[in-house]
Amino acid sequence: MASLTFMPQKTRCPQRGRNVIERGGGKHRTMMRFRTRAKTNDDDDDDIKELMMLQNEFTAFAVELAEAANKETLKYWRKTSLGVETKNDASPVTVADKNAETAMRTLVKSRYPSHAIFGEEHGIELGLEKKSDTHEYLWVFDPIDGTKSFITGKPLWGTLIALLRDGEPVLGVLEQPVLKERWIGCKGTQTTFNGDPVSVHGDEQKELKEALMYSTTPLMFYDENEVRYERLKREVKIPMFGCDCYAYGLLASGFCDIVCEADLKPYDYMALVPIVLGAGGKMTDWEGEPLKFVVEEEGGDGESFQGEVLAAASERLWKASVASLKKQTR
Amino acid sequence: MASLTFMPQKTRCPQRGRNVIERGGGKHRTMMRFRTRAKTNDDDDDDIKELMMLQNEFTAFAVELAEAANKETLKYWRKTSLGVETKNDASPVTVADKNAETAMRTLVKSRYPSHAIFGEEHGIELGLEKKSDTHEYLWVFDPIDGTKSFITGKPLWGTLIALLRDGEPVLGVLEQPVLKERWIGCKGTQTTFNGDPVSVHGDEQKELKEALMYSTTPLMFYDENEVRYERLKREVKIPMFGCDCYAYGLLASGFCDIVCEADLKPYDYMALVPIVLGAGGKMTDWEGEPLKFVVEEEGGDGESFQGEVLAAASERLWKASVASLKKQTR
Repeated sequence: MASLTFMPQKTRCPQRGRNVIERGGGKHRTMMRFRTRAKTNDDDDDDIKELMMLQNEFTAFAVELAEAANKETLKYWRKTSLGVETKNDASPVTVADKNAETAMRTLVKSRYPSHAIFGEEHGIELGLEKKSDTHEYLWVFDPIDGTKSFITGKPLWGTLIALLRDGEPVLGVLEQPVLKERWIGCKGTQTTFNGDPVSVHGDEQKELKEALMYSTTPLMFYDENEVRYERLKREVKIPMFGCDCYAYGLLASGFCDIVCEADLKPYDYMALVPIVLGAGGKMTDWEGEPLKFVVEEEGGDGESFQGEVLAAASERLWKASVASLKKQTR
Repeated sequence: MASLTFMPQKTRCPQRGRNVIERGGGKHRTMMRFRTRAKTNDDDDDDIKELMMLQNEFTAFAVELAEAANKETLKYWRKTSLGVETKNDASPVTVADKNAETAMRTLVKSRYPSHAIFGEEHGIELGLEKKSDTHEYLWVFDPIDGTKSFITGKPLWGTLIALLRDGEPVLGVLEQPVLKERWIGCKGTQTTFNGDPVSVHGDEQKELKEALMYSTTPLMFYDENEVRYERLKREVKIPMFGCDCYAYGLLASGFCDIVCEADLKPYDYMALVPIVLGAGGKMTDWEGEPLKFVVEEEGGDGESFQGEVLAAASERLWKASVASLKKQTR
């Protein structure tokens, strides 16, 4: 496997003297350009070593990050005068959101200065210069996934923390500090909920027509996505709404069958991938392709991806959902 | 004010030797026929006495009911093998639901044998014979409002307990035992949340275009109601989904502006009326009329009401919503 190194589009951030890539590209996609590195003989040893590091050191650190975020988010939970402002996409943003991201960024920069960071509020920051033959680590944060839930006092928002290695999400934390609930997914281990292993429901025979499906809101589907979603919606037993990231936690714990969403950004779903996979579920885009920070060729078709994400409790439900969501040829 | 006495449609329930009215009438409405009683000079004294009884004895008893229900619902919360079955309206029903209602009914029959009971699972039971000149009390239960939330492990379902006096909801409890949250609304007092007084947000100037509005699911609106709801949806700032009864609690605590729903049954909303009113909000049907167990004239137009319910944080938002929801003349 080739590892990926951050490339161009760098601009100097004078305040910090760090390399920063502006958020850019299309409306829905954060453009990052990588160059590939040829695999060497030492890479397998590195992989084992780094997998252990992931399961121990990095997982413990991710929990530290979650707890740092909790201090900031809970300070503003169900308080009036939230300092709500309106972003370009009209989603309300709270002071809590910004402060929690800053707290997490500060911790990463202090502990792992060579790691990169990508968050909703402050965009991308590259890590300090490091040896060119090691893996690229990127922390991806959404301090408050579900800001609308947050400002309306509905405790189903979550803090999302992901660690990507060479573009692949290998560690994810879904933290709900009001309910004191935490899902952790880490490549090579079973997903946990508050420390106990969890898995998707084991009913491999369950069919689409029996499935309970969550989406945050029907308003996230428009244009062709609306047509594709409506087709799937008609095939499941009960389409349900209003969960944000929490729905993926419920799926990982065996309580629902499918989560189908669109119009998501990488910080909305990267942390959820290891959680769902580590619980025995499937999680891909609507075409059935893995969710990664991809290497984009110049002139590539990157803009066709509009944040369409699908999670399913079984191979069977996943396959049926991908088939139902298939684009119609014209 | 005339008080209301339960009338005909009685059938004998041999098991209990109690008078039982079958659930009946239209798909969405529980038909109860009342006869009116002329108001006497003693009624004002009675009203004060009974209001005090309501605020003290009955409120304490409603909390007992909630706690009895909690024991049953929490036993099945996030457990597998829920014993889910399919009702006529395709909503899943759990064993927890039935057991909790039985527990509450048993308590009422033992403590207040002259009170009537209406619940989702077991229909209506009239109270034992009593003096004809006293108020009619009716307990209305929904042990698990939000069964779909319950079975998918989403902790926003609620136990709803209402006490109606002569058809008017005068006491309501919204209990969320997983979150240990309890709203109590009682005529003549301020609504409380876990014992502390709460009120709707005090922004009387807020307009529809700034409003955050909840509905459980867009699928609860169909036929003409869909047209009416879609009009309101376009006028608010953000339409949101997925809260069941919990949304009314959020409104009473000042966190959202409007709750607009349809296709509800009396046990879905009766408990919420005193909670919203006691927090300074408005709660009516879509025509702006109070939500009561109404006296229906023979041949009346009872079937036109399809469980359309509207709650708003201010008079201004309520008026604007009623105007927006208005039926179009053809």
